[in-house]
Amino acid sequence: MTSSTPLRLGFIGGALNSAVGYTHFNSSRLDGHFRVDCGCFSRHCDSNRATAAAYGIAPERAHGSWEELLDREREQIDAVVVLTPTPNHRDIVIAALDAGMPVICEKALAVSSADCRVIGEAAQRNRGFLAVTYNYSGYPMVRELRRMIAAGELGRLHQIHIEMPQEGFLRTASTPQAWRLQDQMVPTVSLDLGVHVHHLVHFLTGGKKPLEAVGDQSSYGHFSNIIDNVYCLIRYEDDLRIQAWYGKTALGYRNGLRIRVFGSLASAEWFQMEPEDLLLCDADGRRQLIDRGTGDACVARLPRYNRFKAGHPSGFIEAFANLYADIAEHLRHHQTGQPMPNQLVYGAG
Amino acid sequence: MTSSTPLRLGFIGGALNSAVGYTHFNSSRLDGHFRVDCGCFSRHCDSNRATAAAYGIAPERAHGSWEELLDREREQIDAVVVLTPTPNHRDIVIAALDAGMPVICEKALAVSSADCRVIGEAAQRNRGFLAVTYNYSGYPMVRELRRMIAAGELGRLHQIHIEMPQEGFLRTASTPQAWRLQDQMVPTVSLDLGVHVHHLVHFLTGGKKPLEAVGDQSSYGHFSNIIDNVYCLIRYEDDLRIQAWYGKTALGYRNGLRIRVFGSLASAEWFQMEPEDLLLCDADGRRQLIDRGTGDACVARLPRYNRFKAGHPSGFIEAFANLYADIAEHLRHHQTGQPMPNQLVYGAG
Amino acid sequence: MTSSTPLRLGFIGGALNSAVGYTHFNSSRLDGHFRVDCGCFSRHCDSNRATAAAYGIAPERAHGSWEELLDREREQIDAVVVLTPTPNHRDIVIAALDAGMPVICEKALAVSSADCRVIGEAAQRNRGFLAVTYNYSGYPMVRELRRMIAAGELGRLHQIHIEMPQEGFLRTASTPQAWRLQDQMVPTVSLDLGVHVHHLVHFLTGGKKPLEAVGDQSSYGHFSNIIDNVYCLIRYEDDLRIQAWYGKTALGYRNGLRIRVFGSLASAEWFQMEPEDLLLCDADGRRQLIDRGTGDACVARLPRYNRFKAGHPSGFIEAFANLYADIAEHLRHHQTGQPMPNQLVYGAG
Amino acid sequence: MTSSTPLRLGFIGGALNSAVGYTHFNSSRLDGHFRVDCGCFSRHCDSNRATAAAYGIAPERAHGSWEELLDREREQIDAVVVLTPTPNHRDIVIAALDAGMPVICEKALAVSSADCRVIGEAAQRNRGFLAVTYNYSGYPMVRELRRMIAAGELGRLHQIHIEMPQEGFLRTASTPQAWRLQDQMVPTVSLDLGVHVHHLVHFLTGGKKPLEAVGDQSSYGHFSNIIDNVYCLIRYEDDLRIQAWYGKTALGYRNGLRIRVFGSLASAEWFQMEPEDLLLCDADGRRQLIDRGTGDACVARLPRYNRFKAGHPSGFIEAFANLYADIAEHLRHHQTGQPMPNQLVYGAG
Ligand SMILES: NC(=O)c1ccc[n+]([C@@H]2O[C@H](COP(=O)([O-])OP(=O)(O)OC[C@H]3O[C@@H](n4cnc5c(N)ncnc54)[C@H](O)[C@@H]3O)[C@@H](O)[C@H]2O)c1
Ligand SMILES: NC(=O)c1ccc[n+]([C@@H]2O[C@H](COP(=O)([O-])OP(=O)(O)OC[C@H]3O[C@@H](n4cnc5c(N)ncnc54)[C@H](O)[C@@H]3O)[C@@H](O)[C@H]2O)c1
Ligand SMILES: NC(=O)c1ccc[n+]([C@@H]2O[C@H](COP(=O)([O-])OP(=O)(O)OC[C@H]3O[C@@H](n4cnc5c(N)ncnc54)[C@H](O)[C@@H]3O)[C@@H](O)[C@H]2O)c1
Ligand SMILES: NC(=O)c1ccc[n+]([C@@H]2O[C@H](COP(=O)([O-])OP(=O)(O)OC[C@H]3O[C@@H](n4cnc5c(N)ncnc54)[C@H](O)[C@@H]3O)[C@@H](O)[C@H]2O)c1
Repeated sequence: MTSSTPLRLGFIGGALNSAVGYTHFNSSRLDGHFRVDCGCFSRHCDSNRATAAAYGIAPERAHGSWEELLDREREQIDAVVVLTPTPNHRDIVIAALDAGMPVICEKALAVSSADCRVIGEAAQRNRGFLAVTYNYSGYPMVRELRRMIAAGELGRLHQIHIEMPQEGFLRTASTPQAWRLQDQMVPTVSLDLGVHVHHLVHFLTGGKKPLEAVGDQSSYGHFSNIIDNVYCLIRYEDDLRIQAWYGKTALGYRNGLRIRVFGSLASAEWFQMEPEDLLLCDADGRRQLIDRGTGDACVARLPRYNRFKAGHPSGFIEAFANLYADIAEHLRHHQTGQPMPNQLVYGAG
Repeated sequence: MTSSTPLRLGFIGGALNSAVGYTHFNSSRLDGHFRVDCGCFSRHCDSNRATAAAYGIAPERAHGSWEELLDREREQIDAVVVLTPTPNHRDIVIAALDAGMPVICEKALAVSSADCRVIGEAAQRNRGFLAVTYNYSGYPMVRELRRMIAAGELGRLHQIHIEMPQEGFLRTASTPQAWRLQDQMVPTVSLDLGVHVHHLVHFLTGGKKPLEAVGDQSSYGHFSNIIDNVYCLIRYEDDLRIQAWYGKTALGYRNGLRIRVFGSLASAEWFQMEPEDLLLCDADGRRQLIDRGTGDACVARLPRYNRFKAGHPSGFIEAFANLYADIAEHLRHHQTGQPMPNQLVYGAG
Repeated sequence: MTSSTPLRLGFIGGALNSAVGYTHFNSSRLDGHFRVDCGCFSRHCDSNRATAAAYGIAPERAHGSWEELLDREREQIDAVVVLTPTPNHRDIVIAALDAGMPVICEKALAVSSADCRVIGEAAQRNRGFLAVTYNYSGYPMVRELRRMIAAGELGRLHQIHIEMPQEGFLRTASTPQAWRLQDQMVPTVSLDLGVHVHHLVHFLTGGKKPLEAVGDQSSYGHFSNIIDNVYCLIRYEDDLRIQAWYGKTALGYRNGLRIRVFGSLASAEWFQMEPEDLLLCDADGRRQLIDRGTGDACVARLPRYNRFKAGHPSGFIEAFANLYADIAEHLRHHQTGQPMPNQLVYGAG
Repeated sequence: MTSSTPLRLGFIGGALNSAVGYTHFNSSRLDGHFRVDCGCFSRHCDSNRATAAAYGIAPERAHGSWEELLDREREQIDAVVVLTPTPNHRDIVIAALDAGMPVICEKALAVSSADCRVIGEAAQRNRGFLAVTYNYSGYPMVRELRRMIAAGELGRLHQIHIEMPQEGFLRTASTPQAWRLQDQMVPTVSLDLGVHVHHLVHFLTGGKKPLEAVGDQSSYGHFSNIIDNVYCLIRYEDDLRIQAWYGKTALGYRNGLRIRVFGSLASAEWFQMEPEDLLLCDADGRRQLIDRGTGDACVARLPRYNRFKAGHPSGFIEAFANLYADIAEHLRHHQTGQPMPNQLVYGAG
């Protein structure tokens, strides 16, 4: 938690009817690092107004368009949070950066590598601030695992199995948002889930580079011509291999994000639905469950991850708030004019 | 979440160094039903000030004593939240009620039945508002289970096994707060854990009455002469039996609250460390895992319990916030002068 | 496995239609320690004959009464195995002992302590051999746990929670054997399940003595007036406490035998439905899963418990066969005229 | 279990020091379908003799070479069981078939498709009997799953994820048999594990055909130049996809065989380490655990899979014995001269 005045946010997108808006409202405010002061939550006037009311925003600060928000709030807020559908991130993010405003943007940053590059250029030419919310990296045990890997506790990394199966496209009466039912050059499922998978490998390995990939994609759900299942085998530098799978037609998995890392000395497994535990197995056949209450834990025992003591499950919203705390720290440095690199916050790079 | 102005709270106790203060800060604010405007967080000036700063409270509203807070904030706030050690709840709660202020109080309300009665009288003579935070009843699957029982889906209730094992008194270098190392007439462990156990049985059964009890208590931890392990067998009306266990010397259990309900038609099991799942078993040998993503769920599918969709674990803080939402609703009714009974909020009764 | 000629058994009871007969047939023969040469499997001629055929027994060695079997097979077999309903164990066992024949008897040995004493006397006056098949103690991880406790790895024992919930009396269309629907002085459920519970505590603690007990029993199943649910709190010597529960009306539990041992240094948990794992938790918050593939395991790594290597689940039948192997060893010693005490085999004592 | 005289077996290989011999001894005899009458358990005289003694075989029927066994036992036994290292299966199997003897052979049948074809020809020209022991298909819940798929209960099959991770090549002090440390054209790990994976897909899908595959293999273990980790993505007919993984360097997995089948209506998951449960999930978000005690189970409720009632874990050896029971039935038909196809027994085809 913080002793400073909260940083002030303006939301673009994230109305009550959106999937992820309320999560940003809750997690940005959780520890008091941020408060939400204004927004253009929706292009629909009613929805915009209702959201403002629900979020406790003064009516006059619920703007009718994101351009208006950028224009009028520039001096009043510390950052904008871009929560619109992925396809229109690019224009908003670039406009905000060009307006000199720090940007926090939902993943995927954009719909193509080309667009990401353009955004990256905008960030650079403005010496701007850009943070993308790869929220799964905010889970304490994922961070503990990263530490273990960096410390060599797993030995030489051999393979990572990462999967993110979901079921939304096969559930009875499923109604995805329209924008999710159109594929761009990169299928939307890869923008939705693939980027998490890709980011987590980067995050855990400290940035190892992929060299070669082979994969397969298919369309199994209720919505034909939409890719909804993707496999990928990837060879990374240092003889590391990744087996990746994600999709939206795996009945039984609300969100089955699972990471398994196999090294020469030990392996580790983490499952997002039981995020407080990390299974660690070694070459002597020991299998250990580590959580933030384990004496051996380093990262996860930090006070910041123990809002309440172990044994009282913390979950998605706290993980998201952990990342928001990092973003806050990063942003405050940026505001001093002397930005510091932050290994926990990813931008366009 | 709410569309109304947040209700204003004053905290008594709950400084940064306390166990449960930050949880109240987070969960009361989570959905925007409340905000924390003032407090007497600690009798220690530094701690009080530091907490005020961290919680974003104006220094002049960090009061030096709870009496001062009651005195000065009466008109400015909607309720006080009592977060001090259990032994000094009574005086504060009664003083607040007598000052005409609504009270939200941590469990245990008081250290004895006698004290509870006195508090109850204060509530009644003032037509006051009093809500005790039995937070475990805020878990959606606990509420789903309550609905199932009330609807007769488990058949006639036979037995409930409830346990709340913890380990704090046997962990290496454990340092409980001083007040937890003194037993009153009712041992502190029973005030700490026993009241949760008792409340949950009441909550789930719709208030069935205990008739006869037998039990045993012991002291196994590092702190001699302090009861830290309690068993109880209780016969309730309608031939219902309860097997209860709680304690602080069960190594391996950070907080192993587990509830098993056995009826004539079905049984159910819920485990606090995996709070999103409820196991339901029937007389045909079916075993089903129900969560808020299951089509058959009724309570847990409500929007209020789905801040973000199933598959993204919600935990302790959301459960606490669910109860705070009920308290808000209850309190707003109270403020209209036409209080309505609320089955989810318990007072002194 | 053995290099000697198998010991020869005669079964009394244990026909194909019985619950436990086939398990004895399988597990006694598994490692080649025994073979089944004759029997009086049932008083019903057809059932007796059909069982003999299925077990590969010569027709003339399927005897019409157990008296006949004792009479005719005395010289041909090494032991009789008593598998009839509990209430008629006593007469058969005593007759066999008096006939000078070693006896292997299913639990419960008899229906009362008085009867057990009489049997014990018969064993003593004949210097007879008597082994009761408390099969759950044959699980390798239960034996590993016993070793840990004896070695002090859990520290001073504080409490053991042991439960054996089953569901047979509440399942749809449940049809228990007639003899299970009559209670003696000791309710049948206690003879069926209670003796396992009692034996396991004895086995694990190395024979600690109970001092005081309090409990409750009820009848919740389809069969009225039959006790089918029992709780018990027991104080043992050395300030050890036992919380015990068993019954046949706990829907969801085919056979939920679970043992949790809490000591001053560590705790352990074993669950019969996943018998290969033992959870071990210590005072530093470590939680470890131990199996026969763990380097640290001592007992469970022995070749005798690794008929095939770890990772290939062994279960009930192997556990039973482990006990049969101990009985074989014990019996061979007995046959030499120089019996040796065997801590894994329990008689009437 | 059987009412007929047991079929008589001769083992080639399978000495006490072998990995899998004792399992065949136990599982073939378990239900009384077979007995082991003779063998050439090892080329080493001592080992051969010791094994014969342990298995209760007359010394004169422990033959010094498999050729001798085939020669002398032809009339005395009903089948030979080939348990030697995979590379020398071919010659033995062909010789046995050419000698007119039924053959039961461990997987992999041979080291190459070419060799399998030659064996297949030998089987055909002799109208011989050949059964390969793909033992994992003997698990009741795997068979239940096969039934579900065939009955369309999962809808149209989309994808199967199957993995068989093991750890032997990275464990401290690991000492695989020499023959496992040499790769043929097909790496030994694929003969060891890959054939199980391949067979299970065939078994579950009722023989769907693979069309296209892509994969990757590596060597991560202590034994350089030996392939010990394999990934494979395979497209089958009817738009079915398989993600396969197996290997011997996945620390933590003794034998982590896991099968997940995703269809358009439901998905199912089975994990070999907890073989009694099958998780079934549908499009309404129901998640159900099915075992042989569930009323809805069809296959797994058959008496043959319930040697003792549900709740008493059956495992690897019973699964193997289930397959042996099928082989016995198949062989008895073969012996009548009127062979019947048996969908549970696979030969060279
Ligand atoms: N990190 C995660 O776990 C996670 C989860 C879900 C979504 N997301 C990401 O969040 C973003 C939003 O996804 P979602 O599922 O909430 O989408 P959504 O369609 O549910 O919501 C989009 C919101 O943006 C608003 N909006 C659209 N165009 C706008 C405009 N021009 N101006 C202002 N508001 C506008 C809509 O009114 C709506 O409130 C996407 O980039 C998505 O990938 C991330
Ligand atoms: N619901 C739950 O899960 C849960 C969990 C923990 C504690 N609790 C309850 O919360 C209450 C507090 O427990 P805790 O563990 O946080 O205790 P604690 O000792 O950690 O904290 C007590 C706080 O009260 C303050 N305080 C003490 N006397 C005061 C006074 N006269 N005026 C103002 N402030 C004062 C202290 O400075 C401290 O901040 C207890 O009643 C306890 O039973 C509930
Ligand atoms: N260890 C365990 O896990 C376990 C499990 C089940 C039963 N048991 C014990 O095994 C014993 C048998 O139980 P069960 O469930 O198999 O009972 P059951 O009623 O199913 O079978 C009893 C068998 O005994 C035969 N029998 C009865 N009277 C006989 C007589 N006078 N002579 C010859 N045969 C006779 C019957 O024909 C039948 O085959 C009981 O003591 C029971 O407590 C132990
Ligand atoms: N189905 C399964 O789960 C499983 C498990 C393990 C092994 N297997 C298979 O079983 C077979 C044996 O594997 P293993 O691990 O037991 O091998 P192993 O090396 O442990 O044992 C081989 C046995 O064959 C004997 N042998 C070798 N050459 C012989 C010869 N010419 N004549 C007679 N005996 C001879 C050896 O003495 C030894 O007893 C292999 O095909 C393997 O793939 C299957």
